[in-house]
Amino acid sequence: MKKYAVIVAGGSGSRMGTAVPKQFLLLQGRPVLWYTLNTFLSAYEDLVVVLVVPGSHREAAQAVVAQMGAPERIRVAEGGVTRFDSVRNGLALVEEESVIAVHDGVRCLASVELVRRCFAEAGKMGSAIPVVDCKDSVRWIEGEGSRAMDRSRVKLVQTPQTFLGRLLLPAYRAEYHAGFTDEATVVEAAGHPVHLIEGEVNNIKITLAADLVLAGELISAARGTGG
Amino acid sequence: MKKYAVIVAGGSGSRMGTAVPKQFLLLQGRPVLWYTLNTFLSAYEDLVVVLVVPGSHREAAQAVVAQMGAPERIRVAEGGVTRFDSVRNGLALVEEESVIAVHDGVRCLASVELVRRCFAEAGKMGSAIPVVDCKDSVRWIEGEGSRAMDRSRVKLVQTPQTFLGRLLLPAYRAEYHAGFTDEATVVEAAGHPVHLIEGEVNNIKITLAADLVLAGELISAARGTGG
Repeated sequence: MKKYAVIVAGGSGSRMGTAVPKQFLLLQGRPVLWYTLNTFLSAYEDLVVVLVVPGSHREAAQAVVAQMGAPERIRVAEGGVTRFDSVRNGLALVEEESVIAVHDGVRCLASVELVRRCFAEAGKMGSAIPVVDCKDSVRWIEGEGSRAMDRSRVKLVQTPQTFLGRLLLPAYRAEYHAGFTDEATVVEAAGHPVHLIEGEVNNIKITLAADLVLAGELISAARGTGG
Repeated sequence: MKKYAVIVAGGSGSRMGTAVPKQFLLLQGRPVLWYTLNTFLSAYEDLVVVLVVPGSHREAAQAVVAQMGAPERIRVAEGGVTRFDSVRNGLALVEEESVIAVHDGVRCLASVELVRRCFAEAGKMGSAIPVVDCKDSVRWIEGEGSRAMDRSRVKLVQTPQTFLGRLLLPAYRAEYHAGFTDEATVVEAAGHPVHLIEGEVNNIKITLAADLVLAGELISAARGTGG
């Protein structure tokens, strides 16, 4: 079965306080997005990447693609207004008889091992959604007040959210609604329960300057080159 | 009104994979706990710290106290089996006519500004619980399945959790039960709703090796000395 990774790199960088969108910031001399693409290209030799970027960042994205070992395995699609639109645009470039991972471009620390586990589990179970425990106490806002939640039942959701193409593609033919906050919610709305698997604590989203610092350190450590 | 900070430094370091408990690991040459103590001692000249440590770490804790600028403002209490027990032991050393912050020893990146806001708000409102938004999607485990939660209503809870002594001390006279996962839940069980305030994204709990790396970088950056 074919394997695709739809990588959504649509952020504008506003939370970071930087002019350059976060997926193009440099980590040890390479853009954040380079690491993300490299992980998926390394996971399977026959995997095809669909990179979804806003038109305004297409040139920057093409420059990253040109740095990759296998640029011919990367297709570029246009980002939309919502994440749902962006993913749908990416899915227009894939076949239904497939397994498809949808991933945040700024989660550059996901491991090859996690990607492979997601594909293997989605192939068997229909879907694979990586989640991790929450190490802080959690509260739920209710009106003016709040109440403590049982933290052991709360899971933080990561990507790659991975699905059989024959579940994911039909689900994305739905009309957008505000409850579609990630791919799992879209597939659930189409009537398919999703399958959770264990994610990785280091698989963080680079959204703040501090995240970038951490990612740089972890990449250095993985290379064994020190800080 | 008197000001106290009960700092709970009870962890055994098991999640870190290190022999040294995480509150004693070095960051830029100083123990994690040093930074935590220093922040509270710096916030107010008249604040008294009650440091709660397990008997097995008392000597290590005393060594850190000896490094502080104002060791005479630090009292040491014995840790208990649960966090509830540890906090209660710490509260035995404070007066009721006071404002009391309870803080995780391994949250060494809380700012002086956050500490002051907690005391000011708790003085006015009775309590101040710092919380931050959750940037990942969130799911709630239900039986074999799970469902998406509205992330905008989920808050991640930090410390210092700060209270008027006349609310906190009577609340800790209760019998322990499993729902007491932090100080806010104890005070709520005594019939007092808690007041949430904005926390800080960098105010992380050092529980994994990656957190220590990040904390080191942030402390370097704050000092302007680079990595």
